[in-house]
Amino acid sequence: MTESGTAVHDGPRRAGARLTLASSDRDRAVMSTEDFFRWWEHRLARGRFEVTPIPFAELERWGFQEQTGNLGHESGRFFTIEGLRVEDGPTRWQPIINQPEIGVLGILVKEFDGVLHCLMQAKMEPGNVNTLQLSPTVQATRSNYTQVHRGSATRYLEYFAGPRRGDVLVDVLQSEQGAWFWHKRNRNIVVRVDDDVPLHEDFCWLTIAQVRELMRVDNLVNMDSRTVLSCMPFVEPAAPSDPGEFGEALARSYAPDGSVAGTDEILSWFTEAKTRCEWTARLVPLSSVRDWTRTAEEITDDRGEDFRIIAVRVAAANREVAGWTQPLLHPRGRGLAVFVARRIAGVLHILVRAREEYGLLDCVEMAPSVQLLPGQDVSAVDPFLRDVATGHVGRARFDTVLSEEGGRFHHALTRYRVVEVGSEFPVEVPPDYCWMTTRQLMDLLRHGHYLNIEARSLLACVHSL
Amino acid sequence: MTESGTAVHDGPRRAGARLTLASSDRDRAVMSTEDFFRWWEHRLARGRFEVTPIPFAELERWGFQEQTGNLGHESGRFFTIEGLRVEDGPTRWQPIINQPEIGVLGILVKEFDGVLHCLMQAKMEPGNVNTLQLSPTVQATRSNYTQVHRGSATRYLEYFAGPRRGDVLVDVLQSEQGAWFWHKRNRNIVVRVDDDVPLHEDFCWLTIAQVRELMRVDNLVNMDSRTVLSCMPFVEPAAPSDPGEFGEALARSYAPDGSVAGTDEILSWFTEAKTRCEWTARLVPLSSVRDWTRTAEEITDDRGEDFRIIAVRVAAANREVAGWTQPLLHPRGRGLAVFVARRIAGVLHILVRAREEYGLLDCVEMAPSVQLLPGQDVSAVDPFLRDVATGHVGRARFDTVLSEEGGRFHHALTRYRVVEVGSEFPVEVPPDYCWMTTRQLMDLLRHGHYLNIEARSLLACVHSL
Repeated sequence: MTESGTAVHDGPRRAGARLTLASSDRDRAVMSTEDFFRWWEHRLARGRFEVTPIPFAELERWGFQEQTGNLGHESGRFFTIEGLRVEDGPTRWQPIINQPEIGVLGILVKEFDGVLHCLMQAKMEPGNVNTLQLSPTVQATRSNYTQVHRGSATRYLEYFAGPRRGDVLVDVLQSEQGAWFWHKRNRNIVVRVDDDVPLHEDFCWLTIAQVRELMRVDNLVNMDSRTVLSCMPFVEPAAPSDPGEFGEALARSYAPDGSVAGTDEILSWFTEAKTRCEWTARLVPLSSVRDWTRTAEEITDDRGEDFRIIAVRVAAANREVAGWTQPLLHPRGRGLAVFVARRIAGVLHILVRAREEYGLLDCVEMAPSVQLLPGQDVSAVDPFLRDVATGHVGRARFDTVLSEEGGRFHHALTRYRVVEVGSEFPVEVPPDYCWMTTRQLMDLLRHGHYLNIEARSLLACVHSL
Repeated sequence: MTESGTAVHDGPRRAGARLTLASSDRDRAVMSTEDFFRWWEHRLARGRFEVTPIPFAELERWGFQEQTGNLGHESGRFFTIEGLRVEDGPTRWQPIINQPEIGVLGILVKEFDGVLHCLMQAKMEPGNVNTLQLSPTVQATRSNYTQVHRGSATRYLEYFAGPRRGDVLVDVLQSEQGAWFWHKRNRNIVVRVDDDVPLHEDFCWLTIAQVRELMRVDNLVNMDSRTVLSCMPFVEPAAPSDPGEFGEALARSYAPDGSVAGTDEILSWFTEAKTRCEWTARLVPLSSVRDWTRTAEEITDDRGEDFRIIAVRVAAANREVAGWTQPLLHPRGRGLAVFVARRIAGVLHILVRAREEYGLLDCVEMAPSVQLLPGQDVSAVDPFLRDVATGHVGRARFDTVLSEEGGRFHHALTRYRVVEVGSEFPVEVPPDYCWMTTRQLMDLLRHGHYLNIEARSLLACVHSL
């Protein structure tokens, strides 16, 4: 599993990936996309690092608590691996990451030549499958920015907090993976400045159109960038790549009207779904978790179907500190997240599902039409969606493999697809499902507890169409 | 503590209470307010019941679990009294009510003679200080309406669920007391019907204006009615009682503009407040709670300042079942909740506070300007608000003692005040506080996790001005 930072980024994988800028923005971008990729290669070449799996006994400053068996840091900060017990008919157990601190995921934006640009970061995370990914300006836990691990200060943080803060355009707490995190939220924040901003070599200015186009490159735009991008309500959609019926229906999906269900109706549908939710979940000592086993090197479920908890040693030059060890959650295999999109009365609607996840603070959030965790197969999908999940039905409008958080997850990949279906696909759907326009989804993102992280990633994908 | 149902309702206490209807509605109400009080006296006369404190050992079907010391029902339903451990600098403990089920608080509305009426219920709860209070059409836990205690079916429930459901006007999960409940939410729902509705003798139709006027009677409109009333966004405010500057400023507070802070700014302020919140709270076995002692008859904090957990026997003729025993939470003394209101640029603004409460699902909600739990004194209030809290500053526009939930709390009373302050009161306030218009508060109530139960009660009071 040792990886070298000199590995060359494998570039756009599929022929379909569009890497040209919309003509309107092309000439006004601070950096052309070609130049971006040259800069990216330099970052990769410079960012030497090694990630090596180690036995838990070799973790430094991390250890298993005697009484509970929980795996934590000696400072009590960062995160702990604890147990989760769920009463849901049968009792279920699993390890779960508990990180009660609210971190900051911030993108700084600034106009250059009349075009809004985002300050993006080439950031290494130990669990990344490919060294660096394109990250928000600031991506920091509270432990990071209060420098618990005694590293250097978080760059650009002063623009997001305190007296030097710019104009706040977005500022909302959003959830993360409910299957792996206990009640995790991060602050998604977009701040606009007009002053000159010094540019550090790990950062670059990209137009929103450029970032959206880079979404189509496998494992490039990281999860934290995607969630912040999804919450930007003020940005017009890109000129549709397909100027035909699909493009027109997509454009109308950003308008305030034309939805099949009103917002009050949708809120009532969502309240109903929460009310149906009868399980309860509690943190318990990791040592009390049944059906999972801890060895010297991993914690695994006895059936070998779910994720593993492992430990790694990281040696890198290009992060807040020179090297460290930490636990990571390693999913087995690749996840799948699909938004089914359908024209209804000329307006593109997206099928969302009210999905229960044991680690969510509010039990239920709106999720992709199809969401399979790594290790789950298509039998976990509601029958009316199986042909979409297998790819036998619908036309893929977006299809890219993107990574989940590399700071907590090891090689966690999800295939994100936006699939257009035709009039043969039913408008009437089971009670857990609801058709919504893009605009309705964006409006709900002003608030927390509505769209789960996978749905937000997909919404960022829709913005790139 | 034994109380008799024949005790006469003590009627409007203060001279200031307005019990006349706005003239526009007076002639069109199904029942005049005078007739309402006659009907109410009949309900009181009929609703004989006794509530008697008993030792815990006399509880039937309730008991302390051996391993945890938690107090629960043998069915596992209703609620349990568990322990809460909070890491907030020092570690704090307290008992807390855990009721994971989401109940229904529903008001059925219907037009008579062009005026919207609410179907309200004269409902007995064992903890009520005065036998009956005016309750929503349906007030039922899931255990109630699935008939765990084998009583009769919940009346009118069919209008809120299933195929006979009417038009849903409001449908949102809202929190309850964060000091006493663990993550409690109820479904606040308003449903409109056009069909004839059979009227049971414990129910009556009142116009919204009538219900609002009854808010000024001590301990009449119960907590569950107040929270549902606060969430009704579609109802115009009553004609202001004071047609002068205050009335005009109040009317403008319902308009979509004129606020000193935009909604995005307020959402960012609220996100910031949540991010500052660094404590963590967990349910623990009640037997592990320190600084509290269980005797044969009560669970009390050793300093004698906080609430007590007691047990009661209830004998009544007029409820789902004939008699039962249950635990109740008994606060010592009376709470205080104040909305400070101030004209800013001619628009009435309300001062809300981002308040942390250990039992809230999302840690922080918007709370009254001043909120004192029973047993807390004015030293717990931020200095700039102490003169308002003591009544030395400001003009009371609303001042009534109202009850909290009588199904879980014994004699829990709160004095609710809306106090207008003048231009000597600062517009600049500490970071936990924010000025908002009535309209902004109502808009946020379409979503959960924003206004706490005390702020919602006060908003219902504002609607009655």
